[in-house]
Amino acid sequence: MDDVFRHPVPVRYLEVDQQGVVFNMWYLAYFDDALTGFLAAGGLPYTDLLAAGYDVQLVHTEIDWRGGVGWTDRVEVAVSLVHAGRTSFTLDFQVLRDGSSVVDGRTVYVVVAADGSGKREIPTLLRRSLGAERPLRA
Amino acid sequence: MDDVFRHPVPVRYLEVDQQGVVFNMWYLAYFDDALTGFLAAGGLPYTDLLAAGYDVQLVHTEIDWRGGVGWTDRVEVAVSLVHAGRTSFTLDFQVLRDGSSVVDGRTVYVVVAADGSGKREIPTLLRRSLGAERPLRA
Amino acid sequence: MDDVFRHPVPVRYLEVDQQGVVFNMWYLAYFDDALTGFLAAGGLPYTDLLAAGYDVQLVHTEIDWRGGVGWTDRVEVAVSLVHAGRTSFTLDFQVLRDGSSVVDGRTVYVVVAADGSGKREIPTLLRRSLGAERPLRA
Amino acid sequence: MDDVFRHPVPVRYLEVDQQGVVFNMWYLAYFDDALTGFLAAGGLPYTDLLAAGYDVQLVHTEIDWRGGVGWTDRVEVAVSLVHAGRTSFTLDFQVLRDGSSVVDGRTVYVVVAADGSGKREIPTLLRRSLGAERPLRA
Repeated sequence: MDDVFRHPVPVRYLEVDQQGVVFNMWYLAYFDDALTGFLAAGGLPYTDLLAAGYDVQLVHTEIDWRGGVGWTDRVEVAVSLVHAGRTSFTLDFQVLRDGSSVVDGRTVYVVVAADGSGKREIPTLLRRSLGAERPLRA
Repeated sequence: MDDVFRHPVPVRYLEVDQQGVVFNMWYLAYFDDALTGFLAAGGLPYTDLLAAGYDVQLVHTEIDWRGGVGWTDRVEVAVSLVHAGRTSFTLDFQVLRDGSSVVDGRTVYVVVAADGSGKREIPTLLRRSLGAERPLRA
Repeated sequence: MDDVFRHPVPVRYLEVDQQGVVFNMWYLAYFDDALTGFLAAGGLPYTDLLAAGYDVQLVHTEIDWRGGVGWTDRVEVAVSLVHAGRTSFTLDFQVLRDGSSVVDGRTVYVVVAADGSGKREIPTLLRRSLGAERPLRA
Repeated sequence: MDDVFRHPVPVRYLEVDQQGVVFNMWYLAYFDDALTGFLAAGGLPYTDLLAAGYDVQLVHTEIDWRGGVGWTDRVEVAVSLVHAGRTSFTLDFQVLRDGSSVVDGRTVYVVVAADGSGKREIPTLLRRSLGAERPLRA
């Protein structure tokens, strides 16, 4: 899996709660940043997607925590395509703490018109940027 | 379901993104607040749980969005117990916008020692506060 | 000062950092919520302001911390008008922990057109809602 | 001012509100990250400060906005020492959007014992990392 896309995450002090680890909601912020990095690495800056009249919306997420990350940990988020359908696609995320996976995420996005007029088929420029289907977990 | 616990959520202006709805991560903030309210309504202020030497950690969440909430919407989060096991329990959440469910959440928590020494069985004071098992979705 | 407007603030667990107090940025979230409450108490729901074609932007803030607030503290934010000029107005905020002031804030807002076309004079409906000038600190 | 420390800030989509610019509170998150980067660049990783038994607390901030930053802007925060006293120090921050200053911040920190036992004189390892006094604004 050495060639899976990885997005570096600078953990903020404010994200760490009194349990000493990043509060759960911030992982969704990490995933959102990682999505943008993933598409850009696939050749699609998000602004190009918007300029083409498309946007994406999160409709489902599931996250499993086996551990947490702390303020000074070196954190990366691996991203890979699970499946691309007609109007939606699914991504896998893995949060890596010093290289070891501690949190798994899987999210489903639907493609919508940027003007708010509803669902759209995945446009070619987006489909190309998602790469091949390769889930990070079974 | 009229007697399901409901926690009011004052949506903050800053939580609404450029798509005009609350950004996805904030729902986990809402669920965390609603958990505290749910336990308190069941007779267990969170500080009492901590004082007894226990805390809980989120180990799994799944969320489905069928719609979003906006800044001026009247929002409540319904909370109900799905299942209580030996060291973990599962809760259902429903985000209600003006009374209609738009987002479903399900989370699994493990009980841990507040001093960081690891998992614990669900103590009686916590088990009592969770109420009867009654999932909000099939 | 018993009749100064006070806005209740439900502190979120996630806002408390490893120093055991609410991280500094969240006070600006509290002030923003309190501003909305203050205007509404003065007869102007924020949606009415927007509907009339106006919005406000923060151009200056200063905050002094003499203490912090914690998760389970009962917190309120007092709000009062310092000065209303032609296109801007200044508000004082005091964060009360169990009734005692621990944080002072002062902010300056400019009135802008909601359509992004620039500064506007304070409209009458807004000016009325601000009440009389009464700074909370010298 | 070419040799003033600059900390890059990856703006998050979620930080941008419906006015199309980063909501005001997030600048304090940027400043906090920039402080950590500033001290590290001065030879003091924050963990070393904590390990030596010290921490810092924000006691005053003032911020002036002449513009805002958006999601895709290239943003940096310049940091420089204004003054170091006996137990407190003052820093200037400038938020640069594509190289131009749009937001000014000035903050005052007090040095405290990491164990919560109160104020401390600025230790040598911290004083050295702050560099020479050079305000970014008059």
